[in-house]
Amino acid sequence: MKIDSSEYRVRDGDDVDLDKWPTKGKPVCKSKDDYKALLEDHVQQLSDLQRLHYACNRHAVLLIFQAMDAAGKDGAIRHVMSGVNPQGCQVFSFKHPSSIELQHDFLWRSTRDLPERGRIGIFNRSYYEEVLVVRVHEDLLKAEAVDHTHGEDKSIWHDRYRSIKDLEKHLHANGTHIVKFFLHLSKDEQRKRFLERIDDPEKNWKFSMADIKERGFWNEYMKVYGKCLSATSTKDSPWFIVPADDKESARLIVSQIVMETLKDLKMSYPKTSKERHEELITIRERLAS
Amino acid sequence: MKIDSSEYRVRDGDDVDLDKWPTKGKPVCKSKDDYKALLEDHVQQLSDLQRLHYACNRHAVLLIFQAMDAAGKDGAIRHVMSGVNPQGCQVFSFKHPSSIELQHDFLWRSTRDLPERGRIGIFNRSYYEEVLVVRVHEDLLKAEAVDHTHGEDKSIWHDRYRSIKDLEKHLHANGTHIVKFFLHLSKDEQRKRFLERIDDPEKNWKFSMADIKERGFWNEYMKVYGKCLSATSTKDSPWFIVPADDKESARLIVSQIVMETLKDLKMSYPKTSKERHEELITIRERLAS
Repeated sequence: MKIDSSEYRVRDGDDVDLDKWPTKGKPVCKSKDDYKALLEDHVQQLSDLQRLHYACNRHAVLLIFQAMDAAGKDGAIRHVMSGVNPQGCQVFSFKHPSSIELQHDFLWRSTRDLPERGRIGIFNRSYYEEVLVVRVHEDLLKAEAVDHTHGEDKSIWHDRYRSIKDLEKHLHANGTHIVKFFLHLSKDEQRKRFLERIDDPEKNWKFSMADIKERGFWNEYMKVYGKCLSATSTKDSPWFIVPADDKESARLIVSQIVMETLKDLKMSYPKTSKERHEELITIRERLAS
Repeated sequence: MKIDSSEYRVRDGDDVDLDKWPTKGKPVCKSKDDYKALLEDHVQQLSDLQRLHYACNRHAVLLIFQAMDAAGKDGAIRHVMSGVNPQGCQVFSFKHPSSIELQHDFLWRSTRDLPERGRIGIFNRSYYEEVLVVRVHEDLLKAEAVDHTHGEDKSIWHDRYRSIKDLEKHLHANGTHIVKFFLHLSKDEQRKRFLERIDDPEKNWKFSMADIKERGFWNEYMKVYGKCLSATSTKDSPWFIVPADDKESARLIVSQIVMETLKDLKMSYPKTSKERHEELITIRERLAS
C-alpha cells in the first residue's frame, strides 16, 4: 500500500477544522507482519539518508512533534528514529519553562537547541506550545510578564504566529528544513490509553492527574490547534496532520514523510577534487610500500 | 549644550551615504571639565535607571555597537556603562565564529546571548558582521557552507537584512528594546589612532597587521555599512550614526541615547498590593517586638 503523504499535509491557506480531519485514516499496511517489514525498510532507508545528510553537511532538518497527551509522540520518535546514528540526531523535549527561560522571549529556549547542519533535530513539543497550552490557559502569560503593547498586531497570538513564521522562514533560507507533525488522536482513543496507563503498573509513571485536567479542555485545544495549523503551515515548513488512533499507521506515515524530506534535499557525498584525489593516491602509495 | 539625539538617528527609509554624515559633529561640551561633569551625570542617571529597569523586570535592552577598528567601541562601552551594576549588564564580543557556530544559521550564536528581562545586553560587534565583513569578504560565506538556493530573495544580503529585521521585530514585540550605534570614524583619524597604538608600548597589544589589511578595504566597508544602515534602521530598532573622531563627544551622545531609551520605557517599581502591604506590616510588628 502506497502512503500518499500529500493527503496529510496542511496547505498554505487551508482553514483547518480538526473535526473534519480523520483520527483513523485508511489502512497503510495489511497486517502486523506487513507493518514490521515496512517500518524496518523505512528505518533502514532513514539510516542511510542520515549518513549522507551528515557527510553532505549542507542542510539541517528539524522535526517538530505536537499532540494531545497519549497520542504517541514518544513512541513515534522511538520507533522511527531508532535506526539512526544518535550522533546525527538529537531529541529535545520541552516541558515547563524554567525561570531563566521565562525571562527571555518565547522563542529563545528552543532557538538554543536548533539542529546544526548535518543533524536531524527533533522537538518533542516545541515553541508551538506558546500558542497552544498558553492560549488555552491564558494565565500562563503572566509568568512570561509579557507587555504586549509593543506588538504590531492587536492579538498577541497573531504576533506569535508571525514571529514563528518569520523564524521558520529565516531558518529555511539558511538551510534548515522543518517538518511539523500533529498526531491527531480522538478523545475516545485517549480515554482508552489513559485507562491502560492506570491498569498497567509499568505504564503508571506515564500518567498524572494533570493529564486528566488537560483532557477537560479538549474542545479548546482542538480549536487552538486548528487555528495554529491554519496559520503556520507553509510551503517550506509544512504541518502534517497524522491520524494517530492507530499507532502503527501513524509511525509509517511519519517515517515516510521524514524519508521524503531527506530525499528532497538532493544530497550527495562531497566530491573529491582532482588535487585531493592525487593526494590520496600519493598517500596510498606510501602506505602500500 | 543640549544633545539632540534625533540628529544622529537613521530614519526608516533613509538612504545612508556615509560620506555625507559627519565624523566630527558639532561640539557637545565646552571643555574637558564640562565633559567630565556631563559624563558623570549621565552615568549616575544610567545607574539609577538600570536599578529601576531590573526591579521593573518588564523589558530587556540590547545595545549594539558596530564600527571600523579604533573607532572607540571598547572605550565607549567602558566609560558609559562603568557605573552600572554589572549584575544588570552583560557585554558580549563577537569575534570569528567557532566551528560549532559556523554549523548553525548566522543568527544562532548571538540569539543565545540575548539579554533577558531586566538586563541591558551589549553586543560589541554583532550579527551585523554577517552583512558587513562577510559582504566585503564574500569568501567567508564558504566557511558558512550556505546554500542560498532556499532564500526568497535573489540576493543573500537582502535575505539576511530581512532575517535580521524579522528577528528584531519579534524581540521588540516581546519586550526587548534594541538600539544600534555605528561609531563613524574618518579614515584619517583611524590612521592617527593606529600610529598611537604602534608608538605607545601599552597600546601595542591592540594593534595587528590584520587591522591594516582591513583598512585597505575602507571604501568597500563604507559602502556596505551605508547599505546596512539604510536597510535595517527601523522605528522600533533604530541605528544612530555617532560622529566618532572626538571620543568624548561620542561617549556623551551614546550615554544620552541610552538614557533616553531607558526613560522611554516608562518603568516603575513594582507596586505593593494591599495584601502584601498588610503582610509586610505584620512582619514588621513581629520583628519590632
